[in-house]
Amino acid sequence: MAGNSFGTLYKVTTFGESHGEALGGIIDGCPPGIQLDFEAIEVDMARRKPGQSAIVTQRKEPDSVQFLSGIFEGKTTGTPIGFIIPNTNQKSDDYSHIKDNYRPSHADYVYDQKYGFRDYRGGGRSSARETASRVVAGAIAKQMLPEIKIHAYVSSVGPIHLETPYQELDFSKIESNPVRCPDEKSAAIMEEYIRDIRKQGDTVGGVVSCVIQNVPVGLGEPVFDKLHAELGKAMLSINAVKGFEYGSGFSGSEMKGSEHNDLYNPDGTTKTNLSGGIQGGISNGMDIYFRVAFKPVATIMQTQDSLDNKGNITPMTGKGRHDPCVVPRAVPIVEAMAAIVLADFYLINKTY
Amino acid sequence: MAGNSFGTLYKVTTFGESHGEALGGIIDGCPPGIQLDFEAIEVDMARRKPGQSAIVTQRKEPDSVQFLSGIFEGKTTGTPIGFIIPNTNQKSDDYSHIKDNYRPSHADYVYDQKYGFRDYRGGGRSSARETASRVVAGAIAKQMLPEIKIHAYVSSVGPIHLETPYQELDFSKIESNPVRCPDEKSAAIMEEYIRDIRKQGDTVGGVVSCVIQNVPVGLGEPVFDKLHAELGKAMLSINAVKGFEYGSGFSGSEMKGSEHNDLYNPDGTTKTNLSGGIQGGISNGMDIYFRVAFKPVATIMQTQDSLDNKGNITPMTGKGRHDPCVVPRAVPIVEAMAAIVLADFYLINKTY
Amino acid sequence: MAGNSFGTLYKVTTFGESHGEALGGIIDGCPPGIQLDFEAIEVDMARRKPGQSAIVTQRKEPDSVQFLSGIFEGKTTGTPIGFIIPNTNQKSDDYSHIKDNYRPSHADYVYDQKYGFRDYRGGGRSSARETASRVVAGAIAKQMLPEIKIHAYVSSVGPIHLETPYQELDFSKIESNPVRCPDEKSAAIMEEYIRDIRKQGDTVGGVVSCVIQNVPVGLGEPVFDKLHAELGKAMLSINAVKGFEYGSGFSGSEMKGSEHNDLYNPDGTTKTNLSGGIQGGISNGMDIYFRVAFKPVATIMQTQDSLDNKGNITPMTGKGRHDPCVVPRAVPIVEAMAAIVLADFYLINKTY
Amino acid sequence: MAGNSFGTLYKVTTFGESHGEALGGIIDGCPPGIQLDFEAIEVDMARRKPGQSAIVTQRKEPDSVQFLSGIFEGKTTGTPIGFIIPNTNQKSDDYSHIKDNYRPSHADYVYDQKYGFRDYRGGGRSSARETASRVVAGAIAKQMLPEIKIHAYVSSVGPIHLETPYQELDFSKIESNPVRCPDEKSAAIMEEYIRDIRKQGDTVGGVVSCVIQNVPVGLGEPVFDKLHAELGKAMLSINAVKGFEYGSGFSGSEMKGSEHNDLYNPDGTTKTNLSGGIQGGISNGMDIYFRVAFKPVATIMQTQDSLDNKGNITPMTGKGRHDPCVVPRAVPIVEAMAAIVLADFYLINKTY
Repeated sequence: MAGNSFGTLYKVTTFGESHGEALGGIIDGCPPGIQLDFEAIEVDMARRKPGQSAIVTQRKEPDSVQFLSGIFEGKTTGTPIGFIIPNTNQKSDDYSHIKDNYRPSHADYVYDQKYGFRDYRGGGRSSARETASRVVAGAIAKQMLPEIKIHAYVSSVGPIHLETPYQELDFSKIESNPVRCPDEKSAAIMEEYIRDIRKQGDTVGGVVSCVIQNVPVGLGEPVFDKLHAELGKAMLSINAVKGFEYGSGFSGSEMKGSEHNDLYNPDGTTKTNLSGGIQGGISNGMDIYFRVAFKPVATIMQTQDSLDNKGNITPMTGKGRHDPCVVPRAVPIVEAMAAIVLADFYLINKTY
Repeated sequence: MAGNSFGTLYKVTTFGESHGEALGGIIDGCPPGIQLDFEAIEVDMARRKPGQSAIVTQRKEPDSVQFLSGIFEGKTTGTPIGFIIPNTNQKSDDYSHIKDNYRPSHADYVYDQKYGFRDYRGGGRSSARETASRVVAGAIAKQMLPEIKIHAYVSSVGPIHLETPYQELDFSKIESNPVRCPDEKSAAIMEEYIRDIRKQGDTVGGVVSCVIQNVPVGLGEPVFDKLHAELGKAMLSINAVKGFEYGSGFSGSEMKGSEHNDLYNPDGTTKTNLSGGIQGGISNGMDIYFRVAFKPVATIMQTQDSLDNKGNITPMTGKGRHDPCVVPRAVPIVEAMAAIVLADFYLINKTY
Repeated sequence: MAGNSFGTLYKVTTFGESHGEALGGIIDGCPPGIQLDFEAIEVDMARRKPGQSAIVTQRKEPDSVQFLSGIFEGKTTGTPIGFIIPNTNQKSDDYSHIKDNYRPSHADYVYDQKYGFRDYRGGGRSSARETASRVVAGAIAKQMLPEIKIHAYVSSVGPIHLETPYQELDFSKIESNPVRCPDEKSAAIMEEYIRDIRKQGDTVGGVVSCVIQNVPVGLGEPVFDKLHAELGKAMLSINAVKGFEYGSGFSGSEMKGSEHNDLYNPDGTTKTNLSGGIQGGISNGMDIYFRVAFKPVATIMQTQDSLDNKGNITPMTGKGRHDPCVVPRAVPIVEAMAAIVLADFYLINKTY
Repeated sequence: MAGNSFGTLYKVTTFGESHGEALGGIIDGCPPGIQLDFEAIEVDMARRKPGQSAIVTQRKEPDSVQFLSGIFEGKTTGTPIGFIIPNTNQKSDDYSHIKDNYRPSHADYVYDQKYGFRDYRGGGRSSARETASRVVAGAIAKQMLPEIKIHAYVSSVGPIHLETPYQELDFSKIESNPVRCPDEKSAAIMEEYIRDIRKQGDTVGGVVSCVIQNVPVGLGEPVFDKLHAELGKAMLSINAVKGFEYGSGFSGSEMKGSEHNDLYNPDGTTKTNLSGGIQGGISNGMDIYFRVAFKPVATIMQTQDSLDNKGNITPMTGKGRHDPCVVPRAVPIVEAMAAIVLADFYLINKTY
């Protein structure tokens, strides 16, 4: 398997299966001298972890990170930061029923085809548990760029959409409810909807929106590594993501140039921001905003046909403790990947 | 500037400004022994080039590629393929009016901020002319993977959408009209709409859809380099792209798991394909399909305010010969980037 | 700090300071299905570890590796192999005297200059303890390529040289003595010399030679990534290395073409092998052999002037338990780096 | 073929066969705003080109570089610099005799084995003609770092060695003679020796030494990408190189620590410099110096046995115009690769 690293200068490499000894990773390229706020890292970990509220999976995983290197007397030393997140709640027997079975819309089948066999315990490497390592790397990236503010939030759950423009939202409300939707009224409806879905033994998708403020002009490289192209890849690499759009996005494709162009103010800011804070792949200092679509979790508590590795169709009922809706826990992951992308381009931009 | 390379094993690096001596690139990692069909390369170049029909820019650029290395007696040798596309139609004086002015929603301003100055002739490196090199690299990638069929087409122009599912389209009709929409009735409406827009001196966005058939199981790497994440980055790196979705995409975020899961047939294919041919980042052998949103071209033939580099707002009227709608010419670029991504993962997959 | 990864497809990333919690690393790209011989890994670890004989440092570090991922039921799964080597013998107070002092010919000074400060405990990241992680990655690389035989051995210690051509050596004798010199008579003289040097409180350099047999034709990429260029980089990246030569090496620079050319046998092998098994950067199937020069360890048990961070020259006497001669313990490190290089090129070569 | 790129941030990718249309390359990552001295580039090209003196090959290749992008009004723009060097002196018929024959100690055999066939005209990609592109990239790297002075020179030809320490040499004499040895007496003897060798139809190896002055403290990354490890790889990637040593080199392996350690002056410089300007992989501000061993050119004007692709041994006599000794023309190539390495680490170092 290739592709377990992300970034060029702020480079994150992760390892770990959902039911192995531990997850973890290495952050190579973090600059020296950053006084780390370990509590802030734990806060982001807690926002991602299972069992945090009634509308997410009830698995108990403490998800505590242990730093093994690259930090001395509380500060980054510039050397690689190695860290592990022990797996403390492995119940491998929960997964024995999928050893020879391919669950619909999971990676089981393609792993067996590609690698010849797989660690069938709980999704192995394809488990979203891998994203815990991303949250660690993202939390440190945020501290590298203290002036940049990244606000991710849930903007839709299934058919329920928050239509309010982000400029009218109060981001301080994001953490006020378990859905992580800053509009409390919408949040309540979404929460109710998720509870219903869970009762049905079903799951539902959603959208995470993200707004990034105070980005300096000049981040991003103009051809293949455009800022929005890396953000898109970063988001699409998160489990269950099906789409990414920034600025005007898909709705921009319906517009005319005379409507879509962002006219300048004398100071270089723009009157409108359909560009989404990026022009030609480079940040222009305006807010960056984008939306990330998540499909419904594939494991449902209903009986569905699966395929076994002999080619037989067999009914299977989901077991274990799974999320009825992934977006509330995806919010810190979206933020983490955004922070990693920005940290990388920030370092690249220092070379000019 | 970093970021002028794409791919790990089938690695494409490009160079060139719109009004310099030449564009070009190097393809490193193309396997030896591929008998090249040069005519097929020219066909893709012709599909991208300006002046090909009445609804695209009327610039005359022959866009002929000259191969300088890596090919012997018509076959790839395994050594890097260097190529150039001379710029024959440079009218630098066309662009003198933008030397000190930042056009709205162009990269002029951010280039000056990032690099201190810029080659102001015609957009320089930020010009979509760079994509000519991608088309060359993509055309060779297609020939590396002759069994895989990549069909891109225009599925919307501004507010006009082709709603027909791709399974009901006749891809052989894509090239039957200048819009590159396989549904001839929709194509005619779209063409008419683009003509109107051009008469208004305006521009309009659109969507390119792409369907990839006969992909073997196993392409893609499961964590950061998921197949759809690289496809997304590849598409988002194309000029003017604002969004990417694959399979069920954004609409999948509204669905329930019980609706969205793709149930297996005994042979490992699936009854539905909301997954879009990719599970856990790895191709599963079903059709891959995705949509790419393009914003309207920023240069319009109307008067709009621009900013000069002294901080003054000045009215500016677009000059030159620009596309009223970019999607017809974007079709071969989308195909090219898809082919490059697949070629790269095909080679990576050979290492298992 | 960048540069903590090595390799393209068999990619090793390491972390860890000599006196932190743990060292460790991630091996990304190891193919699936390799049945690991964990004992063989421990054997290589034991060959590198301190305290193994009377002529190496007497520090006690068990250097036991814990695998955290990428292995299931004893076989590699194809997913990244994460591992840690806990630091169990940290005596940070041993190093308090170097907190504000730059030892001669150590990295203390340049670290402080480059990063602004350093983890001063025992060399931190610049400690050769980092190579323990390389030995783990190399031991697995060896198992990936079971037909290739890598034999490293000590061929000189200070002024004492083993002049015997490698073809006349019995590699099975390498481990028969603590010097790791396959000629027992030379080994005894070298061992005696090292004991003397240690009594003087001094250290001495040496040379490790390496012979690689059964390499398939075709490993190596011909321009910048020539097989011997990567081997050279790999060896020069080991602590204390000052030189690398392969095949005829520096002595080849004194020869004539008529003497140096290796004439063919009808089967493609060559009558002589001054090329050292590599032509044009690509293995030709003959034995690969090279020599690696190590300087004497900088920490000596004599009093020498050091520099403090206020610019004062101060006498300093080495403390702690250091190697009088590094080459016996360097043997498994040379093998490990050679194995990593070969594993990487083996995978790259599969893409043709 | 992989491996046609060198560097991380100052990244050079080359293409081209000796008898194709052109050689060339792309420099990605060169910072914007460097006023280029094109004459200085041509001077380095002229130092490498054939036919420059009586002791090198008499082929006539003008080796003129054409820049196609990345430069505007004489200054680098920050965008990739594409360039070509047309092949004007292709005499493919000169090489028809090697179409089916493998010359001893050339890459012919391994290319056919690895790629299935080869461009047999003049060595194809394995020709040292590829290094012309490196000289272009190195000449620009030198201009990026105007304070750093790189002096390469010939220090031995076959058995004739210049023993004078570099500190006593007058580098301004390097270009005073066709051998490029700064000691005129040694130069005359070397030149005479090369003339004799050529009369014999033979060739001879040699050593290029290189001294780099005014390097700032802090270049180099401490683990795998040590400054000397990258320099070593860079040099070993040059055609015909068999060995690399820096600072005390192989002779350092014979020394004691008490002799080898470089004691500090109060200002951080050292009294001696056996370290060769690098400690722990990082430049310490002292002179960097290293030696590069070149084997004799394999093509000799005597009759030697070759192997044909049917497995027959056939006598072959070298044809064409080849160098009797490669080191005089290797001097600018060594400088170029050194400059590329330093430029890359200079940019990486800016990220701290």
